[in-house]
Amino acid sequence: MMSAEIERLTTLGKEIHTLVHTAAVLGWDQHTYMPEQGTRERAKQISLLEGMIHEKITAPEISALLSDVEAVPENPKGNASLPEPDRAYLRHVHRLHHRAKKLSRDLVEKLAEETCNGQAVWVEARKKNDFHLFQPHLERILKLTREKADMLGYEEHPYDALLDEFEPWVRTSQVERVFKEVKDGLVPIISAVAETEQVDDSMLYRSYPKDKQEAFGRKVLEDIGYDFSRGRLDVSAHPFTITLGADDVRITTRYNEGFFNTSIFGTIHECGHGLYELGFSDEIRGNLLADGTSLGIHESQSRTWENLIGRSRPFWNHYFPELRKLFPENLEGVSEEAFYKAINKVTPSLIRVEADEVTYNLHIILRFELETALVTGSLAVEDLPGAWNDKFNEMFGISPGSDADGVLQDVHWSAGLMGYFPTYALGNLYGSQFFNVLRKDIPGVDDQIRSGNFSEILSWLQSRIHHHGSAYTADELCNEITGESLNPRYFLDYIEKKFSQIYDL
Amino acid sequence: MMSAEIERLTTLGKEIHTLVHTAAVLGWDQHTYMPEQGTRERAKQISLLEGMIHEKITAPEISALLSDVEAVPENPKGNASLPEPDRAYLRHVHRLHHRAKKLSRDLVEKLAEETCNGQAVWVEARKKNDFHLFQPHLERILKLTREKADMLGYEEHPYDALLDEFEPWVRTSQVERVFKEVKDGLVPIISAVAETEQVDDSMLYRSYPKDKQEAFGRKVLEDIGYDFSRGRLDVSAHPFTITLGADDVRITTRYNEGFFNTSIFGTIHECGHGLYELGFSDEIRGNLLADGTSLGIHESQSRTWENLIGRSRPFWNHYFPELRKLFPENLEGVSEEAFYKAINKVTPSLIRVEADEVTYNLHIILRFELETALVTGSLAVEDLPGAWNDKFNEMFGISPGSDADGVLQDVHWSAGLMGYFPTYALGNLYGSQFFNVLRKDIPGVDDQIRSGNFSEILSWLQSRIHHHGSAYTADELCNEITGESLNPRYFLDYIEKKFSQIYDL
Repeated sequence: MMSAEIERLTTLGKEIHTLVHTAAVLGWDQHTYMPEQGTRERAKQISLLEGMIHEKITAPEISALLSDVEAVPENPKGNASLPEPDRAYLRHVHRLHHRAKKLSRDLVEKLAEETCNGQAVWVEARKKNDFHLFQPHLERILKLTREKADMLGYEEHPYDALLDEFEPWVRTSQVERVFKEVKDGLVPIISAVAETEQVDDSMLYRSYPKDKQEAFGRKVLEDIGYDFSRGRLDVSAHPFTITLGADDVRITTRYNEGFFNTSIFGTIHECGHGLYELGFSDEIRGNLLADGTSLGIHESQSRTWENLIGRSRPFWNHYFPELRKLFPENLEGVSEEAFYKAINKVTPSLIRVEADEVTYNLHIILRFELETALVTGSLAVEDLPGAWNDKFNEMFGISPGSDADGVLQDVHWSAGLMGYFPTYALGNLYGSQFFNVLRKDIPGVDDQIRSGNFSEILSWLQSRIHHHGSAYTADELCNEITGESLNPRYFLDYIEKKFSQIYDL
Repeated sequence: MMSAEIERLTTLGKEIHTLVHTAAVLGWDQHTYMPEQGTRERAKQISLLEGMIHEKITAPEISALLSDVEAVPENPKGNASLPEPDRAYLRHVHRLHHRAKKLSRDLVEKLAEETCNGQAVWVEARKKNDFHLFQPHLERILKLTREKADMLGYEEHPYDALLDEFEPWVRTSQVERVFKEVKDGLVPIISAVAETEQVDDSMLYRSYPKDKQEAFGRKVLEDIGYDFSRGRLDVSAHPFTITLGADDVRITTRYNEGFFNTSIFGTIHECGHGLYELGFSDEIRGNLLADGTSLGIHESQSRTWENLIGRSRPFWNHYFPELRKLFPENLEGVSEEAFYKAINKVTPSLIRVEADEVTYNLHIILRFELETALVTGSLAVEDLPGAWNDKFNEMFGISPGSDADGVLQDVHWSAGLMGYFPTYALGNLYGSQFFNVLRKDIPGVDDQIRSGNFSEILSWLQSRIHHHGSAYTADELCNEITGESLNPRYFLDYIEKKFSQIYDL
């Protein structure tokens, strides 16, 4: 039974949810079809909408309603049992309300306008390989972001305040500990790979026309379970997934005609995000719980489809014959085994989104270290390209040939998304930990993938993860599914096993 | 000098203007790229936004500010002199505010949601040629529209209240008088044409591949002066122009591979609207005056480019050689003269947007008569298809073969746009009356068109019409430019002269 207060909070929440989706329409258009000169006013539109959303979520009426209902525990840490639906909703609204109240509407609007313009300049700066073009924008965005951290407050580290937006209840110090364990586990594998014979991936760098890549990508999306009557696939500079409505979740990709991996794995990755957003249960449809519980959990879904499934041997057992028919010249004489090894080739590389599963997390660790330094002020924006190149060389043993392939490669900082990168690595860890349980629940999973049948996998992910939206915290969900909190061991075990086989370590 | 009150009203107005453009992004997406199942939530988003816009324009703060500044004359009729800029702004805000205050937010939101859903159903009903699918939606929309007319109030006719939204200060009785004069002028010409030898337009019905049509259309748009860095050309079921920002005005078209006229004249038409919206002066940029002054004036711009220029002999003198290169098989042995006559063929036809210049206004008169009957209640929605077919037969001597080509052909009623159709005919009249002055001001206009040079024409339209936005009423603007109020004689003279030559009457 709903009390009148909860009912009213639900109505108010739905209005906010609708406005968030409205802002998403503006964002999607901005990155896909908006004409060049549309940026300036679009920034004002997004800023106005973000301001209105902020005003609505911080409304005195919500304060009053929240204080009328039973006291809600703010920090659920250590509470591994799942809350009742109403409690989950109240806890979520409580968090959103109190977090937003710490920020001024002025800051929210300024940040929205600066980042909308910043993203447009980033696109241009990346195209022209000119960091200086972007630098003043990033400086203004960083300044506002540091103000934001101060307004939000923190106990240990200013970065905690930012991280908490994307990965609620997690602290910088925890990320540091987890990242150390991951790095310690990965470095010996990378070294071992470096000492064995490298796999041949030359067939991936032949000519793959965009149209055929797109047709193949769309086929895979449909097979996996992406419903085009509830979504779209378009092209953008940086691939993304965005929710414009409960039945309108769109993904984008980009095509590289000279490298096969770029589009297909990017497309499957975004589809993983899309399936999560399309999978919320009817009970939370249209309300504020219809959202990912954390970006780490969100990323666990994209990485599950991209890597645990999409880069698996059974997956290409099913798709390789089809692919060879589509690109006979490129793949003539290439065995399925050779292709499988090629798409999993482990090697230091410049671009994060195209990195293999082993080195990928190092790209994240690099960004995490740089952005915490930016936030504390120990690194200045003007010194960022140099710091990037030095650290890259130190971690990967290679140097970016250009800022476009280095410090300018990701959209995130231009969009004000500091505190976001660590969630990519957490997603890899959560994904492996969940998939370990899925394997036990569906013993024939590999056979199903081998026959192109993904429906039981999707159902499992839906019922265990997607349905709940943000009713549970990441930690509650992880405990509920796996019986323990986040544990990097599952990811490291998976990596060790998979790449020992590929590289015969 | 701006007073503090006017300054504050300007700030509030800019916010409303930004929200109107935001709603336009939602609308554009809905008609171009939105996935099928997105409709339901999109309707809620648009409804919420329209409700917010309504709340803002009717805000007590605006009432107070308006009453603080000098009294504003509500009805400018009979005042042919142009108002000072501040006065124009105040008068416009005054009108918007007091008009909106007569409507309830509830009605505005309901109408927005019903029409968003109604448009989606209309698309389907038209595709399936099934009026019954659409009927309950139209019934609900009509009911709300009649409530709207009652809330707005009227002296003579409920339709006055609706017409006034699109053609401010004009009454149904005036439209009736003007339409009678137009009809009386056109009928003898149509009869005369029917008795002479018909022109051959078979070359227009050959195979015109979409891609080539699009390339040609884009070339023409660029020549005319449409700036693709401030706009886009996309495809939709019903072509439209929409302003998503001061520097983001998009147009759509549709392609018919079996009939050349459909896309090119539709594209040029929408471009005419687009150029108007892109032509507001910097002084009114971003405020509420940056809008067409009436839909009749708006349509004068689209019809000027589509017909007075786009269907003129000099225009095809320039483009026909190019077109023949693009479609050599279709146009082999076709003379420029024969092509010019073909695209101007006068004949009773089913589809308004493809009608020739002579019969076009009859399509409007038919809709005007039907929708006034719907609004007064003398015609029920269930009887509408029959009434359409009877009247069509009576006016054109032919019957629509299907509702899809009859009563379902236009989007307007599904979008709640009753009172809108007459403005199309008024646009034809205004357009001819303005062009008559343009011809005197630019004596070499035909030579310029013949050499593909449209810049002086566009500059004339910009400085005389576009720059002012809605600072002046349609009547003030017409008097300022032509020295008199709307006079159908200029249109009838143009038609008589052009078609006497084509048909040797």
